[in-house]
Amino acid sequence: MRLLLANPNTSQGMTDQMRLLAQAAAPKDTVIDARTAPHGFAYISSLAESQIAGAICLQMLADAPPPDAAIIAAFGDPGLAAARELFDFPVIGMAEAAILTALQLGQRFAIVTFSPAMRPWYLASVAALGVGERCLGVRTPPDHAAQVADVAKTRRQALQELALAAAQDGADVVIFGGAPLAGLALEMASEIPAILVDPITAATRQALALAGTRGQRLTRPLAKASTGLPDALARRIAQQTPDPLRHS
Amino acid sequence: MRLLLANPNTSQGMTDQMRLLAQAAAPKDTVIDARTAPHGFAYISSLAESQIAGAICLQMLADAPPPDAAIIAAFGDPGLAAARELFDFPVIGMAEAAILTALQLGQRFAIVTFSPAMRPWYLASVAALGVGERCLGVRTPPDHAAQVADVAKTRRQALQELALAAAQDGADVVIFGGAPLAGLALEMASEIPAILVDPITAATRQALALAGTRGQRLTRPLAKASTGLPDALARRIAQQTPDPLRHS
Amino acid sequence: MRLLLANPNTSQGMTDQMRLLAQAAAPKDTVIDARTAPHGFAYISSLAESQIAGAICLQMLADAPPPDAAIIAAFGDPGLAAARELFDFPVIGMAEAAILTALQLGQRFAIVTFSPAMRPWYLASVAALGVGERCLGVRTPPDHAAQVADVAKTRRQALQELALAAAQDGADVVIFGGAPLAGLALEMASEIPAILVDPITAATRQALALAGTRGQRLTRPLAKASTGLPDALARRIAQQTPDPLRHS
Amino acid sequence: MRLLLANPNTSQGMTDQMRLLAQAAAPKDTVIDARTAPHGFAYISSLAESQIAGAICLQMLADAPPPDAAIIAAFGDPGLAAARELFDFPVIGMAEAAILTALQLGQRFAIVTFSPAMRPWYLASVAALGVGERCLGVRTPPDHAAQVADVAKTRRQALQELALAAAQDGADVVIFGGAPLAGLALEMASEIPAILVDPITAATRQALALAGTRGQRLTRPLAKASTGLPDALARRIAQQTPDPLRHS
Amino acid sequence: MRLLLANPNTSQGMTDQMRLLAQAAAPKDTVIDARTAPHGFAYISSLAESQIAGAICLQMLADAPPPDAAIIAAFGDPGLAAARELFDFPVIGMAEAAILTALQLGQRFAIVTFSPAMRPWYLASVAALGVGERCLGVRTPPDHAAQVADVAKTRRQALQELALAAAQDGADVVIFGGAPLAGLALEMASEIPAILVDPITAATRQALALAGTRGQRLTRPLAKASTGLPDALARRIAQQTPDPLRHS
Amino acid sequence: MRLLLANPNTSQGMTDQMRLLAQAAAPKDTVIDARTAPHGFAYISSLAESQIAGAICLQMLADAPPPDAAIIAAFGDPGLAAARELFDFPVIGMAEAAILTALQLGQRFAIVTFSPAMRPWYLASVAALGVGERCLGVRTPPDHAAQVADVAKTRRQALQELALAAAQDGADVVIFGGAPLAGLALEMASEIPAILVDPITAATRQALALAGTRGQRLTRPLAKASTGLPDALARRIAQQTPDPLRHS
Repeated sequence: MRLLLANPNTSQGMTDQMRLLAQAAAPKDTVIDARTAPHGFAYISSLAESQIAGAICLQMLADAPPPDAAIIAAFGDPGLAAARELFDFPVIGMAEAAILTALQLGQRFAIVTFSPAMRPWYLASVAALGVGERCLGVRTPPDHAAQVADVAKTRRQALQELALAAAQDGADVVIFGGAPLAGLALEMASEIPAILVDPITAATRQALALAGTRGQRLTRPLAKASTGLPDALARRIAQQTPDPLRHS
Repeated sequence: MRLLLANPNTSQGMTDQMRLLAQAAAPKDTVIDARTAPHGFAYISSLAESQIAGAICLQMLADAPPPDAAIIAAFGDPGLAAARELFDFPVIGMAEAAILTALQLGQRFAIVTFSPAMRPWYLASVAALGVGERCLGVRTPPDHAAQVADVAKTRRQALQELALAAAQDGADVVIFGGAPLAGLALEMASEIPAILVDPITAATRQALALAGTRGQRLTRPLAKASTGLPDALARRIAQQTPDPLRHS
Repeated sequence: MRLLLANPNTSQGMTDQMRLLAQAAAPKDTVIDARTAPHGFAYISSLAESQIAGAICLQMLADAPPPDAAIIAAFGDPGLAAARELFDFPVIGMAEAAILTALQLGQRFAIVTFSPAMRPWYLASVAALGVGERCLGVRTPPDHAAQVADVAKTRRQALQELALAAAQDGADVVIFGGAPLAGLALEMASEIPAILVDPITAATRQALALAGTRGQRLTRPLAKASTGLPDALARRIAQQTPDPLRHS
Repeated sequence: MRLLLANPNTSQGMTDQMRLLAQAAAPKDTVIDARTAPHGFAYISSLAESQIAGAICLQMLADAPPPDAAIIAAFGDPGLAAARELFDFPVIGMAEAAILTALQLGQRFAIVTFSPAMRPWYLASVAALGVGERCLGVRTPPDHAAQVADVAKTRRQALQELALAAAQDGADVVIFGGAPLAGLALEMASEIPAILVDPITAATRQALALAGTRGQRLTRPLAKASTGLPDALARRIAQQTPDPLRHS
Repeated sequence: MRLLLANPNTSQGMTDQMRLLAQAAAPKDTVIDARTAPHGFAYISSLAESQIAGAICLQMLADAPPPDAAIIAAFGDPGLAAARELFDFPVIGMAEAAILTALQLGQRFAIVTFSPAMRPWYLASVAALGVGERCLGVRTPPDHAAQVADVAKTRRQALQELALAAAQDGADVVIFGGAPLAGLALEMASEIPAILVDPITAATRQALALAGTRGQRLTRPLAKASTGLPDALARRIAQQTPDPLRHS
Repeated sequence: MRLLLANPNTSQGMTDQMRLLAQAAAPKDTVIDARTAPHGFAYISSLAESQIAGAICLQMLADAPPPDAAIIAAFGDPGLAAARELFDFPVIGMAEAAILTALQLGQRFAIVTFSPAMRPWYLASVAALGVGERCLGVRTPPDHAAQVADVAKTRRQALQELALAAAQDGADVVIFGGAPLAGLALEMASEIPAILVDPITAATRQALALAGTRGQRLTRPLAKASTGLPDALARRIAQQTPDPLRHS
């Protein structure tokens, strides 16, 4: 089993940490092919950055040897729907996987993250799935921390209080969203009276669950020529072969 | 790893077939504790039967040794939300697992099943998840087959045509729903230009993905005395301990 | 006119009080056949208990002589959709009747009840009807009272304040939900600047409104054999006769 | 008990027929104060006509002696929300009452009416209640009959076929909408394998169910002066007394 | 270019102020035919008043020479859908235009207005468009000002604070709704960290954008005789000519 | 007035044609700065291509001199939400503008386009706005034309029949979507009994309507460093200045 973990952020440290968590969530012989975005942003926090990083992510998926399943390793899932159109292997989104996991563990969930700057992007993920009624909100500290990398430590108490409040408001499940909080759910499990979900763990488990699913899809996009795209991605897009049943 | 596969139908043959499929979808050392409903219906096909079989299913879950995760092995998921309130281990629904799998594999899915009698119940499962906009319908032959057990063979051509039509209407994914169709998706994979989902396989994979997730939940129901209930179930309901933070 | 009032809780005192309220809401010559669940829970307060009590309720409806209409006398409506599939007489739910009444009396309504433990179950009733946008929430005291039976008295002030706050937030109508609050809306009518709805009164009135409606429905479930079910219920399920127009 | 039946159409014959049906649906001693619009349209069939007739209907309600409950006797419910703001007695809409009745009798309903010209207006009524998912459409003959008054006879076969098709498509309940079809549901009950709902009967029963409900509402509109309005209506609007708790 | 600005309120001063703002938002040679309701209410603040004023507004549109586009100049859009059925020229609603403008300028918007009495009516406008998920509420001072005309001055600070709070809660755009606040968005633009929308400006711009759009619509209402209606309106309704393709 | 028309496709001919239509829809002195994507696809027809072209489009908007308003000139609106976060000038989407125009001209609209391959992408635009209930579908010929550029001519009859059928199904408005159909709505206006909307005309008019709207938004993304991005785009993203009120 080989999983591609594509971090659309440019932070190698973040990739390393997520690789460790993914490895821990998978059988020992699973190969985690963890890759960091060749360019872009240290961490994505807006729809605009997601638009750009999503395109970079398609390039990363095209460049890598085809895995059994791929994970787009940023909460917010840049490029997810696009990747599913293009590639034959299953593609997992971290936010989507965490939310689908939460839906299977309780009636209502909340998302706790480290900065109010992430809220619009994360809310869009919830809305995209159409499960807004079961979400008790994206809850964050009131302001943005200057140092994002170690925010799980510097803001630990605030994050714990947010998770506790979500449980008291009726959340069966709390998701800790955002790469800088990767692993926090595992660490804080005994402190919060709710089921905690770690998105990278959830995404790895979903990747294992869907690995190997394939199919000749009539709904593939048309084969398309392009200019100026990275080679592997251009080839992938050019190879999409429309089905004779549908397109003349 | 030990998975409880609780078939809320009384058909032992159905249980045996689903156990084989579950075993095939899991690592070799996974123990599948497959159980058949002690009483009720040979197969469930209505909301009324689901109300009754759901209560029986809670009894089955209380009677079994606590597994790492449990599967309610009837498409339609009788008793699913109730079971999640009561038990500490994750509980997976066959319809829900199949639908969540489909959502991760494409934009639109369709459900194909063997009888129009199943449609209202299956539509309720889709609506319960709030993903109706991505579902291209529950598609069935026009009438109900007298012999349900071997319907995957006797109606094979009709089912194939329904799946093909769903693909042509834009379904990326087709789910074959209903216990009598267990395994059909695996068999027909090369014949339909769409990704096919087998619900028992999907449920087993989801059970493996969520196995071991636990948490002290503030949202557990109050401990409650009861009369006339099967022993293990009554004990389980009586043991629900409300959290001091929330209830006086 | 004969109405069946089936209390799916085992509290005879609750049944007696609801029978009095139902009798007061109906013409004098109306017979109220009030029955208490033969086993189960003193009062239902969770989805799990509702799953079990809903099945018991089907048994109660099958055991009684067929009425002109039946009321499932627990806010939360355990077994409601199932009962409508099975029986020829109209079946009324207390929560649904109260909500449909509220929708006809104003633009927005709120539900006030006695314990936060009821909230998830009641919210599910509102969501099931699809009218969440017109509901200003399920409002409760912050904690659960140890003695539920007399909570209408011991928490009277808190309940009054919750109803008043709902009116000030824009609720045209306030529903007092939960059997222990039966009758409170009638008592408190002059104290709250909103229209107050008593669910048992509303359900009785809806039962009278729909009494006698019948029809040969093509959408009845298939006739079905069963094992281990109470006699009358098993017979009812076995007698469901599919229509030749639809099922082969 | 006195019910006001306000026909916002100018057809006296239609009023007479609806009065008979209302009388038949109510206890013998119920007084039906049936009134015909003093001006406007012979029958309403558009949003534009509904805007105008709704204002006329408010005038009719203000002119009549206050009843125990009022029925706006046109499917489409012109002026319904407005009337509920203005008057202390309950106001029932024919479409809304029929739909709420249908929701209590089955999972899915369809509306059959006599002309495609009615469809947009009736669809708006379904959408206004937020129950579109449970509606299998507004079904009509393909063209508009020149003579509307006797369309229940001249198009009987087409209407029967539409109702039958709705039942076969899964409708538990079929509503015959539109004043020219008043009573048809009662007549055709034995011919269609579904529960048939007659809107004027349903509205009368709902009026009886809600009769007498009142309340000092904080949500009443502000008292307001006006010019050029019919006297009684102007007085009613001027008498709306804001509550000191809410408005300075 | 000639725009009809129909103020369904009877306040000439309000009409004058809106005409100035409309003129300022349009090219110099645009003729603004501003008209005040001949009777009705000084300002509309409820669904009931909107029902009546909407009918008056149809009369105003029928009485005026046909413009290139018309604006219904009251936030809440009385008679909007009705007018679109009846008239060949485009009809713009102030609330709808402001909301559609806001949707094109950001992800989330809030509406700030001068009195809690307006909230139900304005919320209905948001719900009618189906964009409730992107609206952060209708925000108002806690009580109703006795003098409405100069409320933009007397409550300036409260309104500014409400807009600021909306921006802090994540609103990209803030709409100042209600005729007495006309122009406030232009005045306060530099004080609030959000994009401010002035409804009369937005409506004028939309009227210019749609001016001249016409079409022979199959969906026009049937031609209809009437009694007691103002002459021009009656003629307009009588002239609606059904298309031979659709109606027999 | 200067409008930026950014064609995210690489077809210069398409840009030229859209520039002519935009110029015709605007006052004479309007400058249309029409630009063609420097690389990418001849025409976009999938979510995957939209992900990539959306990122290219952000680059185009950053490279151009800031206009009074910008149009993303591809039905499907690649990069629209992202662009609105990043730029101070209003950004208009062709699909969104056409749909918002249609909503203001009638109750229901349909989209007609040239190929079934466009349907999933266009449906996503409708769903993104949340107005699916008012859309009668994306209607297309059954198969994909090999030559896309002149499809407005080669498939004229099929497109006309689709528009006519939409009108007969109740569409007040028909949008001709897709760059190869630009201008067809103007040409076919007298042939179809519905209001026809040309997306580039609608987008130009919306751009004129919103031009000049600006605001210091608290909701701007954080300023962010990046690597490997085109210069102007990187500078734009780096200049996003968070507001001191919200971010520490």
